[in-house]
Amino acid sequence: MEAKFQELKTRLLEVDDLSSAAGLLYWDQSTYMPPGGAAARGRQMATLRRLAHEKFTDPGIGKLLDALMPYEESLAYDSDEASLLRVTRRDYERAIKIPAGFAAEVTNHTSESYQVWTEARPANDFERVRPYLEKTLDYSRQAANFFPGYEHIADALIESRDYGMNAAEVSRVFAELREELVPIVSAITSQEPADDSCLHQHFPEEKQLAFGLEVAKRFGYELDRGRLDKTHHPFMTKFSLGDVRITTRTKENFLGDALFSTLHETGHALYEQGIRMDLEGTPLAGGASSGVHESQSRLWENLVGRSRGFWYYYYPKLQSVFPEQLGAVSRDTFNRAINKVECSLIRTNADEVTYNLHVMLRFDLELALLEGNLEIRDLPNAWRERFDADFGIVPPDDKDGVLQDVHWYFGLIGGSFQGYTLGNILASQFYTSACKVHPHIPSEIKRKGEFNTLHNWLKANLYQHGSKYTASEIIERATGSALSIEPYMAYLRTKYGELYDLGNCSVA
Amino acid sequence: MEAKFQELKTRLLEVDDLSSAAGLLYWDQSTYMPPGGAAARGRQMATLRRLAHEKFTDPGIGKLLDALMPYEESLAYDSDEASLLRVTRRDYERAIKIPAGFAAEVTNHTSESYQVWTEARPANDFERVRPYLEKTLDYSRQAANFFPGYEHIADALIESRDYGMNAAEVSRVFAELREELVPIVSAITSQEPADDSCLHQHFPEEKQLAFGLEVAKRFGYELDRGRLDKTHHPFMTKFSLGDVRITTRTKENFLGDALFSTLHETGHALYEQGIRMDLEGTPLAGGASSGVHESQSRLWENLVGRSRGFWYYYYPKLQSVFPEQLGAVSRDTFNRAINKVECSLIRTNADEVTYNLHVMLRFDLELALLEGNLEIRDLPNAWRERFDADFGIVPPDDKDGVLQDVHWYFGLIGGSFQGYTLGNILASQFYTSACKVHPHIPSEIKRKGEFNTLHNWLKANLYQHGSKYTASEIIERATGSALSIEPYMAYLRTKYGELYDLGNCSVA
Repeated sequence: MEAKFQELKTRLLEVDDLSSAAGLLYWDQSTYMPPGGAAARGRQMATLRRLAHEKFTDPGIGKLLDALMPYEESLAYDSDEASLLRVTRRDYERAIKIPAGFAAEVTNHTSESYQVWTEARPANDFERVRPYLEKTLDYSRQAANFFPGYEHIADALIESRDYGMNAAEVSRVFAELREELVPIVSAITSQEPADDSCLHQHFPEEKQLAFGLEVAKRFGYELDRGRLDKTHHPFMTKFSLGDVRITTRTKENFLGDALFSTLHETGHALYEQGIRMDLEGTPLAGGASSGVHESQSRLWENLVGRSRGFWYYYYPKLQSVFPEQLGAVSRDTFNRAINKVECSLIRTNADEVTYNLHVMLRFDLELALLEGNLEIRDLPNAWRERFDADFGIVPPDDKDGVLQDVHWYFGLIGGSFQGYTLGNILASQFYTSACKVHPHIPSEIKRKGEFNTLHNWLKANLYQHGSKYTASEIIERATGSALSIEPYMAYLRTKYGELYDLGNCSVA
Repeated sequence: MEAKFQELKTRLLEVDDLSSAAGLLYWDQSTYMPPGGAAARGRQMATLRRLAHEKFTDPGIGKLLDALMPYEESLAYDSDEASLLRVTRRDYERAIKIPAGFAAEVTNHTSESYQVWTEARPANDFERVRPYLEKTLDYSRQAANFFPGYEHIADALIESRDYGMNAAEVSRVFAELREELVPIVSAITSQEPADDSCLHQHFPEEKQLAFGLEVAKRFGYELDRGRLDKTHHPFMTKFSLGDVRITTRTKENFLGDALFSTLHETGHALYEQGIRMDLEGTPLAGGASSGVHESQSRLWENLVGRSRGFWYYYYPKLQSVFPEQLGAVSRDTFNRAINKVECSLIRTNADEVTYNLHVMLRFDLELALLEGNLEIRDLPNAWRERFDADFGIVPPDDKDGVLQDVHWYFGLIGGSFQGYTLGNILASQFYTSACKVHPHIPSEIKRKGEFNTLHNWLKANLYQHGSKYTASEIIERATGSALSIEPYMAYLRTKYGELYDLGNCSVA
């Protein structure tokens, strides 16, 4: 048994080496690669991913998993060994359902589609990507159908990112959230918008990057196991538990972009850096789900990084970095600026209140497309109508409407958006639980600018376990209850009740 | 046939993707990787290299090569297709002689050995690495013996880097060179050494890097297909013909290091960037041999970059970058400083005259070790004795003696040094041929600071062909004769005859 278990781990390590190498090729492409490298790089990443897939779906892995079944059953559920076998089995059974040829075909198609999208979006030309998106929808439906027996066709796609979730459950949570959220958005957006002109001044790039990195380090991000680089679309990536990198993007005429991107990606990185080192190289050395991962980027970006307490300590430091720009701006003005709520066109720039409406719009359109109740050719119009209904604005063009997100143009349709809102919900749930156990967390942040107690609670209750537990298991273990929107709504009501008049929305 | 040929190319492309990915992992390790990434990175590179080796030595490749033999014979020798088959066959037949397990064993051993060396060298502790080096010698002899029927045991090791060369031929060339070189070294080193204090001032890093890169661009290095980064031990690396990178190292108290490292690596990069794009992804997309590759780094670093003509144009520019440091230093003083000849301990810092004696010392010791005429335990002493004989200095310690070069501690013993001196010889041979066809090359450099004619001649006669031709074929094609030390000696006599009194050495 021991020998078979070791053989499995050796095989999984090889898969991990290939995937990690592919990850580094992507990081390099997004940071330092000269333009001439693009064509070969796409092919090289595809080769590594194909080999990783081939090695992982090799029948030899299946045989080892079969042989190790009695061993797994003899172990405690939450032992590392049983968890490794359980998670590997789950991933393996999923992976072998997708024919190797299909995965390669989809990769080629989405590469092409992405290329066309990068030109179609600036040209505001939905027609140009339409045939590609139709094919993508076709592939997405095929992918869903490799997992027959579903309740809803989107279920397998959702489950691939958020194991344990399905269309019905996400819809239920979203409906509940929506009902509470819409009146708050209305109450806020009917008021005078916050003045965020203090953020729209000239802020030299180097100083922005240095300040963001300094905060990341204070959060607990370890630079001997990570680094910060510039890119176009910020992301976090991991090549091993000893090498977890973040990227950010700067705008010299807007302070908010680099700073909050950096804190967001730091949240993801703290999760990965917090995983127990002895899970290295196994399928357990990752986050529990897309939603749980996102909860950590949101927690550090928003619940910490946009809080009054955080800036009580750090605003004087920011002012001393940018004395000309912020010396005369009060902390209150700054605080209102970084928490400005408005109905805007672009999801990635949206505030934490309206953000979820952007997600729900996409999630519902995905379901309709997969169900066959919406045709791709009608998608731009459906987008406009829904946007008007939810935000009271009609996007003036497709560029900032249906063409805005890369997701549908660089991957399958279905499963890729719900994690963002689940993350918002869970961020509050985890943070509230941490503060319940350690009520001095907010004052430690406010008075000392320190995050150790919060970080240690998250490491102990969430990060260290990697993906040993499913999302619902880890939520239950860490917070003592199932996923709930209560802490999130309480957080929004308290925070935005201080910034705006919420009228009768402020009463739960 | 066409289908089989395509299948072979597809398989070779996969091997190339894996090797290129391993190359990027190394580049990242040497430039940006945080220290925490080291352990996993070593394993990841080993996995990619092992898979590349497995894929390349797969019997399927052998079958395709066999089946394609009649096709190859039906083609012109210098057609791309025949060349691809010929070179692949040569590499394949070599690769399959080395058992896969052996390659992996050596990789593991040299990784360990390297690790120990990084500690033993600063500690001046040869005894610490001795057992590793003994094992390395053992592995080296084993490796040589996978190629029975040799004249000299080092032959296969030499041929792996410099195809067409063997111990007898290298020894013959080196003996011929040595006879001419030793009197010149004696003549020069008996004179007052040049004053190079102008190079030993404070030169801010950013300005050094910018100046070096500017010259690299003027040489013809294309930044949309390359980039320059800092590292500890400068190198050039290629991930595709569209992505050929160089690295350099700066010392703020010495101008010579970054500048000439950059020009050296630029020479390697010009070779790779000059390869015809349609050889991309095949075994033909590389240099002809270690010696021919080195000839290009030497040509651009020394024959161009340390020439009086080059600095006639560029010295005023360098002075304007460093007015405080060089404003009062004459061009002649600078020229003598960058061409200072002296008997020094360290190969990599040696001038272009004494450099070859460092190489010959190592080459001869390698032969003696492989022959069994020298034991590892006697190596430090043999080094000291030979050094004293050649340079009139006894190295005060092993750190700057037998422990100085990474080569023996990070790879096999044998074959890794001769390329440097072959490169010096060939640099002159190629440059002289280019100037014979285009006599205005020196004045184009001196008067206009331009390199197009030289670069274009090298592209047309050398670079574009990649490794279609062997070293001796390409030397013959480009220069009309076999490898010859004549142009090199003529170059040294002319150049150093202007800088020093060479006495009767100046007459050939």
